[in-house]
Amino acid sequence: MSETLVTVVGNVATRPEFRKTPTGVPVARFRLAATARRFDRERGGWSDGHTSFYTVWAWRSLGEHVVASVGVGEPLLVQGRLRVREEERDGKRWISADIDAVAAGHDLTRGTSAFRRVALPRTELTVPQQAPGGGESMPADPAAVLSG
Amino acid sequence: MSETLVTVVGNVATRPEFRKTPTGVPVARFRLAATARRFDRERGGWSDGHTSFYTVWAWRSLGEHVVASVGVGEPLLVQGRLRVREEERDGKRWISADIDAVAAGHDLTRGTSAFRRVALPRTELTVPQQAPGGGESMPADPAAVLSG
Amino acid sequence: MSETLVTVVGNVATRPEFRKTPTGVPVARFRLAATARRFDRERGGWSDGHTSFYTVWAWRSLGEHVVASVGVGEPLLVQGRLRVREEERDGKRWISADIDAVAAGHDLTRGTSAFRRVALPRTELTVPQQAPGGGESMPADPAAVLSG
Amino acid sequence: MSETLVTVVGNVATRPEFRKTPTGVPVARFRLAATARRFDRERGGWSDGHTSFYTVWAWRSLGEHVVASVGVGEPLLVQGRLRVREEERDGKRWISADIDAVAAGHDLTRGTSAFRRVALPRTELTVPQQAPGGGESMPADPAAVLSG
Repeated sequence: MSETLVTVVGNVATRPEFRKTPTGVPVARFRLAATARRFDRERGGWSDGHTSFYTVWAWRSLGEHVVASVGVGEPLLVQGRLRVREEERDGKRWISADIDAVAAGHDLTRGTSAFRRVALPRTELTVPQQAPGGGESMPADPAAVLSG
Repeated sequence: MSETLVTVVGNVATRPEFRKTPTGVPVARFRLAATARRFDRERGGWSDGHTSFYTVWAWRSLGEHVVASVGVGEPLLVQGRLRVREEERDGKRWISADIDAVAAGHDLTRGTSAFRRVALPRTELTVPQQAPGGGESMPADPAAVLSG
Repeated sequence: MSETLVTVVGNVATRPEFRKTPTGVPVARFRLAATARRFDRERGGWSDGHTSFYTVWAWRSLGEHVVASVGVGEPLLVQGRLRVREEERDGKRWISADIDAVAAGHDLTRGTSAFRRVALPRTELTVPQQAPGGGESMPADPAAVLSG
Repeated sequence: MSETLVTVVGNVATRPEFRKTPTGVPVARFRLAATARRFDRERGGWSDGHTSFYTVWAWRSLGEHVVASVGVGEPLLVQGRLRVREEERDGKRWISADIDAVAAGHDLTRGTSAFRRVALPRTELTVPQQAPGGGESMPADPAAVLSG
């Protein structure tokens, strides 16, 4: 079975936190809130539906640019590999829906953006993070990687 | 923001349960396990990665056909609207990743299938479940609908 | 940039043709027709929209099972890598939208299916076709591969 | 069958053109080039694969913001409804792969962006373009709409 690729359009719910893994890989993490919109045929209008929350992980250059560009409340479009992850914390079972981002950008439906290209470091030119199957993506337990 | 559409390729982890909502709408529910496969460049081979579990909801004709066709362990391809849902049960916080299926089928990568067309009931011809935005899909709390 | 993954729900428009490439790789090819359905708010009902045609390529086991299972007019759900391809034939420019399938199955919205698992050949267990980035997928010019 | 939703990560290949339809609806149109990247196991590195070209249509606010924000060569992430369209021009058959965008943004993998929110006009708050099935999207023949 392949990876599950998903694209989520939502609003940034927490300020992106930036860290480096023990091996020096930069990563940004933030929460993304996606609210469904439904057409209500009886009322003849649109209304907000359920809101889903995702934990987004952006690695390397993507992580650095997210931290430099993205603030709470901004509309974002994120494509990545979806993973439903279960863990124990303080004796409680916890499930989260994680997205290992391969691309992300401000949603121009909601406003304008001024883009500035940044040269990729040489390592990413040879082993790009965004290529599926690259094997350099989210570790088995991303939270553990960051706890050091 | 639009709905989040996702396609998951996985194995059926629980026998599909069939019920009717209090208003008489048929629905099938089952768990789907999706295991990522990664290419390990050091070893030069593929290995299993993380397994994500989803709760799949199939409504109306799709639900009836799923119950008539799908067994535990079978490989399945499901497309649907993704929803990360939080609830309290017995004082515990619980999160699940639900998929409101719009289409589903046995994955022919793993075997063969013999298909038999079933005429759709008249109501579904005029208001198909599988059309996005139709407003006749997963309720705010699917579990509650079924508890009656 | 990563591959473009797409899931199309449609009807099989041509009988799957089965061939082997000069190097002995089995492949099935067929056309898939996908018709959009739209909710017409003025009329208060659904109507058929535009129909898109895709050329689907199914490799190895998936190709063998498609040929053994799928007939013209059957509803199919196909996930794969999308490619818009341009070529010259008899002095005419030609564009096609190809899908290099990673998974496919009969859409249970429209009927039932009886699945029979087939053991994968040993080579596919170590190098599965469906893993993105596996590098064993659609050649630069699939049509050329088949012309021998 | 539902609409076919696709997310393409690529580079803007032509300057977005802005027009209004005869009924006054703003729309931007541009070409997007998406190049697949593949891991070459023999060489142990990544290389460019095939490039696909899409014609992207962005309506209303999204179209206005695209024109104000996006230039040729910039990396873009576009989610939308895919449509393979056939037409006759000057006696020649022509096929194009169109994307009716529901969301789009600069890909932060390649650089940074400064976002500025723009208040949506009142009409789009009640009938958002980005809601699937809204029925206010790409006409049967977008090119014809623009020829007036």
